[in-house]
Amino acid sequence: MLTSMLQPLQAASLGVEGEGIWLALGTIGMLLGMVYFMAKGWDVQDPEEEEFYVITILIAGIAAASYLSMFFGFGLTEVELINGRVIDVYWARYADWLFTTPLLLLDIGLLAGASNRDLASLITIDAFMIVTGLAATLMKVPVARYAFWTISTIAMLFVLYYLVVVVGEAASKADADTQSTFNTLRNIILIAWAVYPVAWLVGTEGLGLVGLYGETLLFMILDLAAKIGFGFILLRSRAIVGGDSAPTPSASETTAD
Amino acid sequence: MLTSMLQPLQAASLGVEGEGIWLALGTIGMLLGMVYFMAKGWDVQDPEEEEFYVITILIAGIAAASYLSMFFGFGLTEVELINGRVIDVYWARYADWLFTTPLLLLDIGLLAGASNRDLASLITIDAFMIVTGLAATLMKVPVARYAFWTISTIAMLFVLYYLVVVVGEAASKADADTQSTFNTLRNIILIAWAVYPVAWLVGTEGLGLVGLYGETLLFMILDLAAKIGFGFILLRSRAIVGGDSAPTPSASETTAD
Amino acid sequence: MLTSMLQPLQAASLGVEGEGIWLALGTIGMLLGMVYFMAKGWDVQDPEEEEFYVITILIAGIAAASYLSMFFGFGLTEVELINGRVIDVYWARYADWLFTTPLLLLDIGLLAGASNRDLASLITIDAFMIVTGLAATLMKVPVARYAFWTISTIAMLFVLYYLVVVVGEAASKADADTQSTFNTLRNIILIAWAVYPVAWLVGTEGLGLVGLYGETLLFMILDLAAKIGFGFILLRSRAIVGGDSAPTPSASETTAD
Repeated sequence: MLTSMLQPLQAASLGVEGEGIWLALGTIGMLLGMVYFMAKGWDVQDPEEEEFYVITILIAGIAAASYLSMFFGFGLTEVELINGRVIDVYWARYADWLFTTPLLLLDIGLLAGASNRDLASLITIDAFMIVTGLAATLMKVPVARYAFWTISTIAMLFVLYYLVVVVGEAASKADADTQSTFNTLRNIILIAWAVYPVAWLVGTEGLGLVGLYGETLLFMILDLAAKIGFGFILLRSRAIVGGDSAPTPSASETTAD
Repeated sequence: MLTSMLQPLQAASLGVEGEGIWLALGTIGMLLGMVYFMAKGWDVQDPEEEEFYVITILIAGIAAASYLSMFFGFGLTEVELINGRVIDVYWARYADWLFTTPLLLLDIGLLAGASNRDLASLITIDAFMIVTGLAATLMKVPVARYAFWTISTIAMLFVLYYLVVVVGEAASKADADTQSTFNTLRNIILIAWAVYPVAWLVGTEGLGLVGLYGETLLFMILDLAAKIGFGFILLRSRAIVGGDSAPTPSASETTAD
Repeated sequence: MLTSMLQPLQAASLGVEGEGIWLALGTIGMLLGMVYFMAKGWDVQDPEEEEFYVITILIAGIAAASYLSMFFGFGLTEVELINGRVIDVYWARYADWLFTTPLLLLDIGLLAGASNRDLASLITIDAFMIVTGLAATLMKVPVARYAFWTISTIAMLFVLYYLVVVVGEAASKADADTQSTFNTLRNIILIAWAVYPVAWLVGTEGLGLVGLYGETLLFMILDLAAKIGFGFILLRSRAIVGGDSAPTPSASETTAD
């Protein structure tokens, strides 16, 4: 349905061109993920498990809304650089990422059993990374764009370091199921997130080696992997079932003694 | 005083027209509510009770600032749809609601004794509702406006469902005073909040059945009911007095035994 | 390096004029502060002490990014008042302050041992102060500018009152080191913060008694004092070392008995 709407909307000069197909596919992918997570979590009772479902459904829902708005040409703006070059940028991505990346870190942090203190630090550095990334995207002076890209990428390295070392240390004290799921999710984040600054650099915002069509496709694949793929693995894991129920069997064993 | 300032300000072509009278009345109503709450709470000592006062005074203060800014023509913008129609929208409402609706949910959630986990979920869905409502208001493509209106309204239904079922379950374990106040406040939210999407739909942002004059009046009445009326009932209730002091009499009774 | 880049960037008509020198110095000052805090905190192990480092490094980093963006002419906009006067304002300051002032209050509040409840109230009023200050800066009607300046300044008085009375009461129960550091930091905030609304009032946003050159210099000095000076005193204090280790000696003493 969305695809069939594409042609007349282009005619209406929304600014969305050929890359609209990837935005439509991104919207559908995020919606399917959200509906799957909702169906799977419908009768979950355990409050800790439920929390993972709520966070992961919200991530998919926010991303779906963001993709839909970009499909309608809403989050698109033109930045005119001081050298005269005009760049089309989808700033709506950053509104999406400002909310979804903290929620992803919350998901993996809660899984690992990280302290509230560590989660708050991690999320604040993450928000700094997104805001400076947006600044890089909107700057008119080329040297300023690369300066803020560097700042944002350094912040990303801190986030990934923090995730591996500090959150990883918390995870190393958890049971085998949790450790295995944590390692998979951590690797998804390490790989997928590291590609974003590269995509920015080679895409229209940076050196322009890849056009808006290819860049939008690349971001869509990254977004689906980092959000829906991430959520799929998280919510299928036994590790998210509340730890409160775990001691019960051994408690009844004790009683049986 | 505000009313007498209206005429010259209109002449200065602020964009505020006849509906300025409702914005002035809204400002005065929010200010009176805020001053009343401050006077009433001036010598409250109990920390739990004080928290309800701080939240409720902040709600009235934020709404007063938002109404004053709209009165001065600040939060008003024009959206030109792709079909050529131009809509006057007060986007400042959404900046107001983004902060006041979470605070209202915090008020009723703390009253009910809901868990931090449930409050965080509720507030995140609420923020999603406001942001997608703002997207609906700023979109240039009519079908996109209604798509985002639908998304925002579905999010509202989740918020109201969560309020009735999850927060309601927490409230059902509280004492009779709390249950009675919770039921009244929950009904205010259920009724008042449900009217907002209808007002949007029939107002200038949607079908345009009601003009900006009538819509601004309607939103003013809703805002005063949902914020000042809500706060009035909450802060007059005995239910907000901290539970910490409640066990003291029975403790001294025990001592008397 | 930044200074030598200033001339060609001016030629490129970024909007940044002579005051760019102060923005460059502000960027360098914040960066030096951040690097010093990072070097000093590199091998801190105590989790409570580490938290103060993370917050204070973030404050310096956010301010450095904000100053750098202003240096590149990014956070600068023109406001055309209804009386025809055109004002150059750096709105990026408010994006900076919206994040750094809550973090500064978090620093001093955690030092004093204030409750989460009091910290949340303090930070919410602080955010209200910054947002209404931004509204004052962007308004087109002169009377509205002064109205919002008044609202924001009243909010600041509440923040300072709360800091002295409520957070001060929590600090009065702490040890001598903490009390002494708290008093110094509280005085820095009391003096530096109170100058901001005066700088606004005499600067280009208000009466225009001081031009953008002098105002940018004044804000730079205030920002460095309130953030780097503040952090320097906080992180050199013995008071930030976690209280968890304090009871250990007396516990082992008890064991020795």
